[in-house]
Amino acid sequence: MTAADFVLRNAGLLATLAGPAPRTGPAQRDLAIRERGALAARAGRIVWVGPDGDADAALSLEPGATLVDAEGAAVVPGFVDAHTHVCFAGDRDDEIRRRLAGATYREIAESGGGIVRSVDATRAAGVDALADAVAARLDEMLALGTTTAEVKSGYGLSTESELRSLEAIRLAAARHPVTVVPTFLGAHEIPVEHRGDRERYVRILVDEMIPEVARRGLAAFADVFCEQGVFTVEESRRILVAAREHGLSLRIHADELAHTGGAELAAELGAHSADHLVFASPAGLQAMARAGTVATLLPSAAFYLRLPRFAPAREMIETGVPVALASDANPGGGLSPSLPFAMTVGCFAMGLSLEEALCAVTLNGACSLGVQADAGSLEVGKRADLVVLRGPRLLDLVRVGVPAVRTVVKEGRVVVRDGRRAA
Amino acid sequence: MTAADFVLRNAGLLATLAGPAPRTGPAQRDLAIRERGALAARAGRIVWVGPDGDADAALSLEPGATLVDAEGAAVVPGFVDAHTHVCFAGDRDDEIRRRLAGATYREIAESGGGIVRSVDATRAAGVDALADAVAARLDEMLALGTTTAEVKSGYGLSTESELRSLEAIRLAAARHPVTVVPTFLGAHEIPVEHRGDRERYVRILVDEMIPEVARRGLAAFADVFCEQGVFTVEESRRILVAAREHGLSLRIHADELAHTGGAELAAELGAHSADHLVFASPAGLQAMARAGTVATLLPSAAFYLRLPRFAPAREMIETGVPVALASDANPGGGLSPSLPFAMTVGCFAMGLSLEEALCAVTLNGACSLGVQADAGSLEVGKRADLVVLRGPRLLDLVRVGVPAVRTVVKEGRVVVRDGRRAA
Repeated sequence: MTAADFVLRNAGLLATLAGPAPRTGPAQRDLAIRERGALAARAGRIVWVGPDGDADAALSLEPGATLVDAEGAAVVPGFVDAHTHVCFAGDRDDEIRRRLAGATYREIAESGGGIVRSVDATRAAGVDALADAVAARLDEMLALGTTTAEVKSGYGLSTESELRSLEAIRLAAARHPVTVVPTFLGAHEIPVEHRGDRERYVRILVDEMIPEVARRGLAAFADVFCEQGVFTVEESRRILVAAREHGLSLRIHADELAHTGGAELAAELGAHSADHLVFASPAGLQAMARAGTVATLLPSAAFYLRLPRFAPAREMIETGVPVALASDANPGGGLSPSLPFAMTVGCFAMGLSLEEALCAVTLNGACSLGVQADAGSLEVGKRADLVVLRGPRLLDLVRVGVPAVRTVVKEGRVVVRDGRRAA
Repeated sequence: MTAADFVLRNAGLLATLAGPAPRTGPAQRDLAIRERGALAARAGRIVWVGPDGDADAALSLEPGATLVDAEGAAVVPGFVDAHTHVCFAGDRDDEIRRRLAGATYREIAESGGGIVRSVDATRAAGVDALADAVAARLDEMLALGTTTAEVKSGYGLSTESELRSLEAIRLAAARHPVTVVPTFLGAHEIPVEHRGDRERYVRILVDEMIPEVARRGLAAFADVFCEQGVFTVEESRRILVAAREHGLSLRIHADELAHTGGAELAAELGAHSADHLVFASPAGLQAMARAGTVATLLPSAAFYLRLPRFAPAREMIETGVPVALASDANPGGGLSPSLPFAMTVGCFAMGLSLEEALCAVTLNGACSLGVQADAGSLEVGKRADLVVLRGPRLLDLVRVGVPAVRTVVKEGRVVVRDGRRAA
């Protein structure tokens, strides 16, 4: 008998996602579904997955064990959000409303809007206020089923403020159930005070910020916004190579607004992930497939920014690139922290199947963050992070507006009950 | 002093929508917002709207009066959903999943899928089972802020089954807080048994169904699916003229998949509304503007059906056509009953401003259904139907996934509290 302090019984459908990680090509449709399944955990890790009818014989429950009855509903792995910008102060709601009413980016920028405003507010915020803001956003994400989330810095853009942002992410993570993967994104934008000498800012990133972030162990990843008007491919390469030399893993904002070669760069450097990829080239995708780089797509971002197209997700899957979907929650129009909504847009605007989209927010999301040994599927040894839906149908995940999530379990503890944070 | 049995206090922002109905052109942006507002009702109707600071002096509360404290949050009129198909039995989720996995409409139809399946299931259902299904769907809608909803028949397609569907809608409405506007849509499709002789089905509609629906008082509106492959403009005209002669008001599914002239027909016949209009012509829109016909757009439908474009909402507003947005909730891919999601797609895919979209799901929705004397705005004499958001920002309505609705009041009673049906 297997000892357990957590048991989930009576899952009408258990989408375990067991098997190869990441999933590529036709395998991305394989959810490794077990009908009428059960799952047990001990000390936060999965110790047993099997038919519900075998659970009594197989398990020895410890005193005080937690029992969750799924009542025939579908159960899926906790969602993994591999791309968020939720470490910021202030908001830019008025700009979003002005944009909807017809104002252009230029008009908004000329009136002091855009990322600059988030940088001003974030630089002015104390570490505790920032940590509170991050934790409040993690709360929203957890209620929507996200149990692992990447959080980027990138609204500090000075050594002191970037370090404070990463410290705030660490503080928020320490007190929050969501497992946080911190990413250093000092290369999010050239700050206003360095626009006359961008080389100077690249040198600060390479010589000062990256070494200090690495020394303090504040980030798992470094990221660069490689795009026309932001960082060139050559600058991005210098920054990322420096980060790699300091032991950071790599991810890249690539080919979001135009093709710049970011996908090729991601493959060349062995990045875990290239993100956005709306305008990635076929050659870039082939290079990513060969390198095993995950395509982390952000359909909600393309939707809310009204981009002229969506990333070519089908072409990626056919090319053998593993596709993950993330929320891109951010203050400038990344309005939805919901991975079910990312799935919805992934399905109905990008042409993913429901199965591919679910894999993209679980197992392939975990691979994007390099945490597939701990998260992304329901297999023995991984964290007991899972979502119980309100009914037996996975399709409910894309019924926008109708809450699909009933219970969220994080490391064997019920953290969301009936759609609300458990006490 | 004004006697009241319901008072809403401390609205940070009260979007009253007071003023002209419908709103057209630039006026569609005018929400008639009152900051720090309050509202009182008696016997289900609004009796007073004013500054929160004046409420104590102006109002005399009856014993046992209901008091709602908005705690500074935004308050908007209850949403009016002017286009739903929620009277059906069975579901077609497997088809939707097959479509996402690449199956074509033809493949699905050839394997017995499509509307035919909903007709088979609906014909087989008893009136009580159908009424239960309608009521369960109204529950979902109410929790999302919808307090008035049109519900169509149209999955019966025989005199007996269409009458039973309308009877089920009446039964559901009688026991549910949502105000239901019933629409006869016998002309939803040519049923399989009449495909060899469509003229025969048109005669049944005109000579048998419409007179009987009118005689029994089962519908306020008649509707026709005027589209290539369904009903021609000439057939639609005959059906709608007959309905008008029997005292029914008119609405039309027009120009959804191609331009057929449905918008022009709606204007010609003085229909309250033409719906979908993805491919409406400029001439059709001009005719609608002259006739005062409301354009009821269904952005969620275009999204979920992956149509090649969205209705030209901006052109409509510029032409002087009042724009409403509705959910098109239905079994064949109308997956979201959420009017906040219709607003979201209306804003970010159709280019409406947040204000225009909010008017489109409240006042202009009411005009689409001809119920603007009772619903759609917070003005003295109308029903006390309103939605209290979770915070002060209207933008929260388009943050998909994050529940925006805290409290729903229907005719002066709290029917949804903290996002859940009140006991």
